[in-house]
Amino acid sequence: MNKAAIYHRPESEYAFLYTKDELRLRLRTALDDIEKVEVIYGDPYEWLGGVWKSKCAEMKKTLATDTHQYWTSSVNAPYNRLNYGFILTDTAGVQIFYGDQGVEDVVATSETESSGLMGSKNYFKMPYFQEIDRFKPVEWVKETVWYQIFPERFANGESANDNENTKQWNPDDHPEREDFYGGDLRGIIDHLDYLEELGINGLYLCPIFEAPSNHKYDTMDYKKIDRHFGTDKDFKELVEKAHARGIRVMLDAVFNHIGDKSPQWQDVVQNGKNSKYVDWFHIHEFPVGYKPLDEHNDDSTYETFAFTHRMPKLNTANPEVQRYLLDIATYWIREFDIDAWRLDVANEVDHHFWKLFKTACEKEKEDFYIVGEIWTSAQSWLNGDEFTAVMNYAFTGAIVDYFAKGKITLEKMVSNLNTQLMLNRDQTNQMMFNLLDSHDAPRVLTLAKEDKDVLKQMFAFLFLQCGTPDIYYGTEVGMIGEDDPDNRKPMEWREEKQDVDLFAFFKKLIAFRKENSQLLSEGELHWSVVDEEKGIIQLIRTLGESKMIGTFNTGEEVVKGEFGEIILTNLAAHVDSKVEIAPKGFVLSVS
Amino acid sequence: MNKAAIYHRPESEYAFLYTKDELRLRLRTALDDIEKVEVIYGDPYEWLGGVWKSKCAEMKKTLATDTHQYWTSSVNAPYNRLNYGFILTDTAGVQIFYGDQGVEDVVATSETESSGLMGSKNYFKMPYFQEIDRFKPVEWVKETVWYQIFPERFANGESANDNENTKQWNPDDHPEREDFYGGDLRGIIDHLDYLEELGINGLYLCPIFEAPSNHKYDTMDYKKIDRHFGTDKDFKELVEKAHARGIRVMLDAVFNHIGDKSPQWQDVVQNGKNSKYVDWFHIHEFPVGYKPLDEHNDDSTYETFAFTHRMPKLNTANPEVQRYLLDIATYWIREFDIDAWRLDVANEVDHHFWKLFKTACEKEKEDFYIVGEIWTSAQSWLNGDEFTAVMNYAFTGAIVDYFAKGKITLEKMVSNLNTQLMLNRDQTNQMMFNLLDSHDAPRVLTLAKEDKDVLKQMFAFLFLQCGTPDIYYGTEVGMIGEDDPDNRKPMEWREEKQDVDLFAFFKKLIAFRKENSQLLSEGELHWSVVDEEKGIIQLIRTLGESKMIGTFNTGEEVVKGEFGEIILTNLAAHVDSKVEIAPKGFVLSVS
Repeated sequence: MNKAAIYHRPESEYAFLYTKDELRLRLRTALDDIEKVEVIYGDPYEWLGGVWKSKCAEMKKTLATDTHQYWTSSVNAPYNRLNYGFILTDTAGVQIFYGDQGVEDVVATSETESSGLMGSKNYFKMPYFQEIDRFKPVEWVKETVWYQIFPERFANGESANDNENTKQWNPDDHPEREDFYGGDLRGIIDHLDYLEELGINGLYLCPIFEAPSNHKYDTMDYKKIDRHFGTDKDFKELVEKAHARGIRVMLDAVFNHIGDKSPQWQDVVQNGKNSKYVDWFHIHEFPVGYKPLDEHNDDSTYETFAFTHRMPKLNTANPEVQRYLLDIATYWIREFDIDAWRLDVANEVDHHFWKLFKTACEKEKEDFYIVGEIWTSAQSWLNGDEFTAVMNYAFTGAIVDYFAKGKITLEKMVSNLNTQLMLNRDQTNQMMFNLLDSHDAPRVLTLAKEDKDVLKQMFAFLFLQCGTPDIYYGTEVGMIGEDDPDNRKPMEWREEKQDVDLFAFFKKLIAFRKENSQLLSEGELHWSVVDEEKGIIQLIRTLGESKMIGTFNTGEEVVKGEFGEIILTNLAAHVDSKVEIAPKGFVLSVS
Repeated sequence: MNKAAIYHRPESEYAFLYTKDELRLRLRTALDDIEKVEVIYGDPYEWLGGVWKSKCAEMKKTLATDTHQYWTSSVNAPYNRLNYGFILTDTAGVQIFYGDQGVEDVVATSETESSGLMGSKNYFKMPYFQEIDRFKPVEWVKETVWYQIFPERFANGESANDNENTKQWNPDDHPEREDFYGGDLRGIIDHLDYLEELGINGLYLCPIFEAPSNHKYDTMDYKKIDRHFGTDKDFKELVEKAHARGIRVMLDAVFNHIGDKSPQWQDVVQNGKNSKYVDWFHIHEFPVGYKPLDEHNDDSTYETFAFTHRMPKLNTANPEVQRYLLDIATYWIREFDIDAWRLDVANEVDHHFWKLFKTACEKEKEDFYIVGEIWTSAQSWLNGDEFTAVMNYAFTGAIVDYFAKGKITLEKMVSNLNTQLMLNRDQTNQMMFNLLDSHDAPRVLTLAKEDKDVLKQMFAFLFLQCGTPDIYYGTEVGMIGEDDPDNRKPMEWREEKQDVDLFAFFKKLIAFRKENSQLLSEGELHWSVVDEEKGIIQLIRTLGESKMIGTFNTGEEVVKGEFGEIILTNLAAHVDSKVEIAPKGFVLSVS
């Protein structure tokens, strides 16, 4: 038995309250090593005649990676307290007990403790089912399909507020870093009908606060709508009209750093040590050697985002800064009724601050959604008291790597996806912000070499995952673009250039996701076919009696099969009694 | 290579700030599997000509268990940000890269990423060295040797406050559950000279608040000193006089449950649903079926500690209860200047509350020490924002199991100790409350079959560990006692019955610990000899140039050796040019 591979961690993604009364347990073992795992559990104080009143349940195999097999079980506790341990039997029949003090021989345990296996010393504990500590998913997120807008590039509804250097709206352009195209809030309001028709019900807007750049990640004034984007009134109207259509609104906050044109930083530049904002930043030397034109300066006298002098890092450990930022966070909820914050460079801000942040936001709105920008695994932020989710690049990256880039094998993609899923609690996975591209990555259609069938496969595959899916503006009509800033082209509104077929596809896919949101969010995931050679991948989502099957042909040959009731397809057709899926095709079906 | 055994977890005991600028990394691998581990690290944004500016350092082997080898390295980051990954080479020369996305082939990585191993995708992150999130040890604890007093049994200084049923003070008694012997605060004050002579500088008092029982874990009034123990004035005097002698004072708080005689619970019993305290508890049915005489009632209408009707569980998720308890927590610091809280049944109270608790206590006193009563591993409470430490039974239990009970092998003891140490950050281990017995466990001299040489070995061994050591009252004069309540005998004050030799030994041991506190708290631990057959165990603690060696003979034969400068021994003597350690003997030396 590979004892060294066995892993469990109390009160983590390996042991978490899924609901008030249901504790989900996970165990990790080496792949193909263990035949059976049982969990022994019971109330730590419930003894009868010297014997511990415990139960035993067989754990189920759940996801596997290229190195590990994960096991799962749901248990409950009539008195809210639980001791538990595992008995593992390997493929050779060898049995061991694994508990809080590590691995023990099953026999040795029962010999040395008068109460045998029931002895409580070596058990893991969920000491009490604490509802207040539980990671609580935000229910509406499970039903949401997001649409990300880069406001400067979505639509120019109001030319009067245009920047003086505004360029002609041309979706064929390759925008430069400093270009302006005049997109604004009125443009978004004007296209709410379009978005409603598409079917999305969550709108994620990149920053809209006063800032000199077109991307506005260099905030000047967190309480002011950028003058080129519109007014408070416009934004209020946007939120109200979106809400009236059942569309939630998420704003983008940059709290790691502030823009160099902000009054706070300018005050420091002018007054140096005597500035009242001196403790708002991390300054190592006076006078601050502020060189606004340096894109990269690793010889800085103060800390910045990356090495960008124009983005001085905020000292979020300073209570004054905390109060300032928390006031902003709550202001937009209180005054404008926003539903979610997306947090830029979220992992470079301290946990202490994010805990205050979550508490403050939820005080304003109980079911508030918080998404951190974190590109790697993000366990430390996802324990239920900081973020609801992160931009799930670590997960969706595997989809891009396989389907679009062909960089990894099918098995590796599944392994990578499963690895990421097993880093989080089940309800966390349901909240994850799943995206294939964004303003920070090349457009996925470009990555897919402009192959729209591959694009359709990828989105169908994404929409079958438990996280909440997102579409970057324009993807639905076939927009392309390389990495930033090429991925920020003006939205394609010329009807003759919009891909109507693709739009119709997205409409159907979004409707499909919304109709099956509970199953697709909460259901179990099972990889029923992972055929490397033929390029066939089939996954099944189940919840109670409901079952959804996705079958993808990423190979070179036609795949034939029977798929029950077919819900949505691409490049697939009934031939005789079977369904044939052409290469790059897929079938979503129920059975 | 046993890839499945490799484990690392960002921002945990595997990656933690030890000081503001020093990040300590750990990696876990299978035992005897890996030859070399290197860590590659650098600032995520520091690229030069398309190449990541990274450094490479070889990791050191640190502790090992019967299944795992742990590796460690200290790194820093000039810009406070760090990406890092590991290159492992196994005993057969096979090399792999291990990072945020799991295990990869080293070659494959450099082939697929243009920047090779320097690609930042698969790196773990310490996104920013956040001093505010760092687990901060309490410096004075490193220099502290604790003495635990069960107040009803230490000394009766004031007979006027005795309970009417007070029994004669007789250390030879086997106390019954409900007995009273008249111990009080005056008794402790009267013996501060004794404690000062012994040398201890931390006093841990079991509960002293108004409560009907002799142990007072059934609190009636958290703001009142129990009438049989004395007055506010007495306690103030005790703290002041202790402080004047350099002795810190820790009180014991029971916040998981309250006593059934408390006005809050009595109000619920009387007024049922209409009680204003109805939400202070977890009541499932009215009227509450309160049966005060039932020691065990698993058919309860309300939640209790274990199944004890006399200890109704408090609803610490109720803000009113939170305010009430936090006021108590801070009251005793503010008004009486206590230095630490020991928290009873701490793991059954929610994390949310303990975070508020820590914040509130530290607002009163910055270097406040918080010790939770948790018998198992306790990672979830020891991340720096809840407890400073726990009662370290999970660690010290291995010492008791080997030295006193002979239940485990020497190798297993070392494995168990190392397992526990590797569950925590280094600074957490320094704070751990290390005890061999308490009011909740049989007296260690009894467990050691009254063999005082074994007792001396055990304490010498304990005092060499990094946690802060504790002595249960009376151990220093040879008191014995089986499990609760026999372990709560009246203190032995009859001079002719006190073991003067043992007292002298403890005096020396305590002085030794205090003189070497920095080395013994912060130093590295190395097991230089673990000889199962001969029963020899030798451990070395090092810090910079300082080095302390402990050599223990737990076998049946005399052990001969050279030990440098000898500091403290038992059953050891110079014979010719060597030192002979008799069975049950030990030598502490420096070299």
